[in-house]
Amino acid sequence: MTVDVGDLVTRARAGEPRAVARLISMVENASPQLREVMAALAPHAGHANVIGLTGSPGVGKSTTTSVLVAAYRGQDKRVGVLAVDPSSPFTGGALLGDRVRMQEHATDPGVYIRSMGSRGHLGGLSWATPQAVRVLDAAGCDVVIVETVGVGQAEVEIASLADSTVVLLAPGMGDGIQAAKAGILEIADVYVVNKADRDGADHTIRDLRNMMALVEGSDPHAWKPPIIKTIASQGEGNEELVAALAKHHDWMAGAGELDRRRTARIADEIEAIAVTALREQIGDLRGGSLLDDLAGQVLAGSTDPYAAADQLLAAIAT
Amino acid sequence: MTVDVGDLVTRARAGEPRAVARLISMVENASPQLREVMAALAPHAGHANVIGLTGSPGVGKSTTTSVLVAAYRGQDKRVGVLAVDPSSPFTGGALLGDRVRMQEHATDPGVYIRSMGSRGHLGGLSWATPQAVRVLDAAGCDVVIVETVGVGQAEVEIASLADSTVVLLAPGMGDGIQAAKAGILEIADVYVVNKADRDGADHTIRDLRNMMALVEGSDPHAWKPPIIKTIASQGEGNEELVAALAKHHDWMAGAGELDRRRTARIADEIEAIAVTALREQIGDLRGGSLLDDLAGQVLAGSTDPYAAADQLLAAIAT
Repeated sequence: MTVDVGDLVTRARAGEPRAVARLISMVENASPQLREVMAALAPHAGHANVIGLTGSPGVGKSTTTSVLVAAYRGQDKRVGVLAVDPSSPFTGGALLGDRVRMQEHATDPGVYIRSMGSRGHLGGLSWATPQAVRVLDAAGCDVVIVETVGVGQAEVEIASLADSTVVLLAPGMGDGIQAAKAGILEIADVYVVNKADRDGADHTIRDLRNMMALVEGSDPHAWKPPIIKTIASQGEGNEELVAALAKHHDWMAGAGELDRRRTARIADEIEAIAVTALREQIGDLRGGSLLDDLAGQVLAGSTDPYAAADQLLAAIAT
Repeated sequence: MTVDVGDLVTRARAGEPRAVARLISMVENASPQLREVMAALAPHAGHANVIGLTGSPGVGKSTTTSVLVAAYRGQDKRVGVLAVDPSSPFTGGALLGDRVRMQEHATDPGVYIRSMGSRGHLGGLSWATPQAVRVLDAAGCDVVIVETVGVGQAEVEIASLADSTVVLLAPGMGDGIQAAKAGILEIADVYVVNKADRDGADHTIRDLRNMMALVEGSDPHAWKPPIIKTIASQGEGNEELVAALAKHHDWMAGAGELDRRRTARIADEIEAIAVTALREQIGDLRGGSLLDDLAGQVLAGSTDPYAAADQLLAAIAT
């Protein structure tokens, strides 16, 4: 069924949740009209502040997201939330469970909440998520919060698509910071140690400071990620978190970092679209059996994968 | 430094561990001579039986791998082990820790053990691992065991590169099978419930049977994954596991499934090489600033990512 994309975008920008939902579904399902959607959104995108939120299961991501939503609503901003579940490569299905905690915002027309699976074969978050962010941005969200579990690839990817990345920790979660891996040091703009009333909170903060000291550069103008202690469920530390995010945003804008990050993000998005198009061309060749023929030759030992790839590329080029 | 690839391959095939190590390093580092390496290996590859082994942390993967190594060594087979750590996207670094359990094989010249990181931006296991398997195969390993933690993408990818995939479970690990996600049903050829002397082992097996019943097809000739109970550390159930793998291998060979899987695997490998080459072309364009220019236009709202990707693809084609 062909959709009236112009009408859909107009309705999404007017704040109609079903129109936003429809646009994101078109992204998720790689609708044939996706190009048309993106062209229609282009003039309206680029205004949202994109905040990434990541951390291990159980650190309080949903509660913290809910806190941020409430804070930005208090500033009369429209807020979009994308909860991405990288653990479902097959289904592309949605999270439930934790979403329940966000029910307080479910009836607020200034808040749009969406769960997304990740598409396995297209590589983690890289395909649909930036485009879903673009939909929310163009639909008029002032803030878009992208929340994902910090496992492997996903936490790196969330950092590459956010203006500011919040890494959540909690005392006594698994092996603590060691389990969270050195990767967080490369992505965090703001650290939150949630459940700060629990035993071990100061230990977690000390560990974190020690790890940060190891990688700290000598540039006095560089951003130094603050560590915010929160008890999100009781409202403690939440104002400090919002203030830290605002400060990071101002620093980025002043240092030219905001445009730099956004340009890099869009470059990644363009590249992902181009690579996907090339993969589709290879897939078409595959339907035409060339790839399988080449694979059979490699299996028989009569050629090698690189020489076969050369033949494949030559076939695409013609 | 230019390497004498022919000599290196000859020495690797003669069983010289340092030559094998050097070839795998050339794969990991995407050596400029990699094409030459793969061409030299091609006539010798295609004989190894590739076994994938995946499961959550703590289920006993290393111990089970060690058991399999001992069993195949007892059959006088040469064995290669690749331990892939998908949780280190940044460093591409190697696992240690659990490797210690394999020390009993460290001095056996018929066993080659290697830890590999995964390369984040090239997408999980997809790039280096199949080529490292190819090195071990061509170097004369009769069996190659690829072991990885079952998180997200990695467990899917391991299944795509193995002839037979073993999914390890243990009683009372986290949320049990639910945590292991439905994905395992699509990849397991053999299930192992290790630590079968622990409380809850029968519960785990019952849960697994129930999940399997939900997806079971009606084809009487289809492979039905067996569930093997083991206490790997005490040697219990290990013979049954080796027998189950042999039976699966025979079934695959008889049903034409072995060639089908291997052809599909090689097709994926060829496609990955082709896509990487295309990404490099895009990267070169990027050095020439085209991608950044296009990203700037999208940021300004004057074009959209799809139209920009079209321009990128047009630039590659010329």
